[in-house]
Amino acid sequence: MKGQRMSARKILSEWGIRDYQVIDKPAIQEITLGASILATGGGGDPEIGLLWTYKVIDEGKEIIMVDPMDVPDEVQTASPACLGAALVLTEKPPSEGVLNLAIRRLERYLGRSIQATIPVECGGVNSPVAYAAAGELGVPVIDVDGMNRAFPELQMTSWATHGVHASPTVSVDDRQNVTVIDTGDDNVLAETLARRAAMAYGGISWIATYPMTGREVKDTSILYSQSIAWAVGKAVMRARREHLDPIEELLSSLRKERQVEGFRVFRGKIVDIHREFGSETSKGFTLGKILMQGIEESRGSTAELDFQNEWLNLRVDEKARCLPPDLIAILDSETGEPIRTDIMKYGYRGTIVLIPAHERMRTPKGIEMFGPRRFSYDHDYVPVEKLND
Amino acid sequence: MKGQRMSARKILSEWGIRDYQVIDKPAIQEITLGASILATGGGGDPEIGLLWTYKVIDEGKEIIMVDPMDVPDEVQTASPACLGAALVLTEKPPSEGVLNLAIRRLERYLGRSIQATIPVECGGVNSPVAYAAAGELGVPVIDVDGMNRAFPELQMTSWATHGVHASPTVSVDDRQNVTVIDTGDDNVLAETLARRAAMAYGGISWIATYPMTGREVKDTSILYSQSIAWAVGKAVMRARREHLDPIEELLSSLRKERQVEGFRVFRGKIVDIHREFGSETSKGFTLGKILMQGIEESRGSTAELDFQNEWLNLRVDEKARCLPPDLIAILDSETGEPIRTDIMKYGYRGTIVLIPAHERMRTPKGIEMFGPRRFSYDHDYVPVEKLND
Repeated sequence: MKGQRMSARKILSEWGIRDYQVIDKPAIQEITLGASILATGGGGDPEIGLLWTYKVIDEGKEIIMVDPMDVPDEVQTASPACLGAALVLTEKPPSEGVLNLAIRRLERYLGRSIQATIPVECGGVNSPVAYAAAGELGVPVIDVDGMNRAFPELQMTSWATHGVHASPTVSVDDRQNVTVIDTGDDNVLAETLARRAAMAYGGISWIATYPMTGREVKDTSILYSQSIAWAVGKAVMRARREHLDPIEELLSSLRKERQVEGFRVFRGKIVDIHREFGSETSKGFTLGKILMQGIEESRGSTAELDFQNEWLNLRVDEKARCLPPDLIAILDSETGEPIRTDIMKYGYRGTIVLIPAHERMRTPKGIEMFGPRRFSYDHDYVPVEKLND
Repeated sequence: MKGQRMSARKILSEWGIRDYQVIDKPAIQEITLGASILATGGGGDPEIGLLWTYKVIDEGKEIIMVDPMDVPDEVQTASPACLGAALVLTEKPPSEGVLNLAIRRLERYLGRSIQATIPVECGGVNSPVAYAAAGELGVPVIDVDGMNRAFPELQMTSWATHGVHASPTVSVDDRQNVTVIDTGDDNVLAETLARRAAMAYGGISWIATYPMTGREVKDTSILYSQSIAWAVGKAVMRARREHLDPIEELLSSLRKERQVEGFRVFRGKIVDIHREFGSETSKGFTLGKILMQGIEESRGSTAELDFQNEWLNLRVDEKARCLPPDLIAILDSETGEPIRTDIMKYGYRGTIVLIPAHERMRTPKGIEMFGPRRFSYDHDYVPVEKLND
């Protein structure tokens, strides 16, 4: 089957696309840094995603990103991703070929070839992994994703809230175990089954999910989310090189790229971490809450955050300041490096930045599927702009 | 696809088979009664399996059973079955088409048509269900199974211990949800994934499993296990009609059909039932233990039995009298009706009968996969003949 496969460039020429971007190592590094910041504390270890992508580039395979609006309506796409607890991934790096296996089995189940990859979310693993898979498969990656942030569950995407199904989803592990999940329009059951498969595999699975057409990509994705992550990553890298304030550069990049205003709301250090293990709900997730004590300009204040793989909400001095699906990033004040839920420790210091979620994540259906009440908070959704005006 | 399908008779004529048995309602009733007795307390409610099979017969579809030795080597077969907690099944009878869906998706994944069904075990549900599916599909059912008893887990078959894989297994529910499980030679992981899928569906799943060739059926199955169940069922039915001792008729039928001696070891009533719910191990199973107080000839003795869907072991006055994989049946002394783990209650009275497991279940690999230590008993396997001589 490998021999029959087209190269990304051949696909572009078939589609009549002349404008595209070749993603080299510096580019994927910037995109992954930006994606990690937008991953709101989740998304996994960027080193794993990056190393994978570097390897693909070192093998001479080209990674090409295209504008979603240039993708023909009838093209078949899918999202390759990692599903499981990020903490496990750190101990269990992936073996070669797992994404290939997932994509091939999805193709077999669909009876159609996948002609482009779409990142499922912004994250240290799942962003670069979609690029690595594209390079491996010889297909382009499309400048979109399903969240423009990270979220813990498979059904928490703009794709699902706009009527696209996660099914069929193929879940594999590095011992070549395969589970095909086809639950029709029941995306929550697809998540349950995929999560159970990941746990049976040992905590981590590699999936090919959300098979959709080019038309569906354009109608339901967060458009240009890769470019947004790239701009954010570039801004923070520049701040590091030129000794500028990385938080200010980040906020400025969001103004330019998304015409939105982010909020720098708290500076502090982690003084208490409560991790949940072994409970029914913790299964397959990194779950718990933290307490931060204010330092510098925030001295005297305290911040509380809950997490389920990602930071979910923020309360400063017991007042809600950010609710899902709006974004929370805790960033190292000097480097802009995000502090992740899976590796944070007592004493870590950082600046909390809040970012409005993308409009396609704020529809009534979106608020129902991944707003505060979906995470059992007794609070209506209030946009982060209102909570911080 | 339905139109392209062959009838069972056309398949027989292609295979050059002239001797076969047409299974009518009385026949399936006798087979199911015998299978329920051999199901060692598990296997589910025979009413559900029987009603399904009757419906198929009432629709004019023919159910034909063939001798395994007449099946050509290259033929593709598979086992349609119910997997889950029998207790749930009682509350959630199956909808039409679930087995068809499972078989069709298995065919799609294999790229081959299923030309015969093989019952996975002896049980009130899984025996007749294989006949019903054969009738629905227009293929014969083969006179074999994978246990000649019932066992709680998918990998506990003579098929697995003789090198045949449960993968790929297709698991579906009555809302058309589909999970395809392909774990290569890891049958235990296939069981874990299938069990988790069943629980995600609400406790019960319908599967198409153990796809194998005619050659593999002959080399690895319990041969003529349907005929054995049929003979047992016939004997007990005759006892009921002619007011004979059903236990004696049962033992006599085993002597004739299998040349083995069963043991009538205890008569008593259930005085204590401990059911486990909600624990990690109880998930997807009917699990616990019972205590019986001796009556009549057993007065003054006590019997203890553990169960995991099926009765697993028997201790009389703290002495081991039966260990897995040997069979335990608790039968109503008057009617020979088996007492099942999922519906038994305080005060039920019955006679405990022990039956040696089939030789293909007693291989060293078999004892490793479903002997006493597999169920955490600190006891080497000792054949029931030795424990009761």
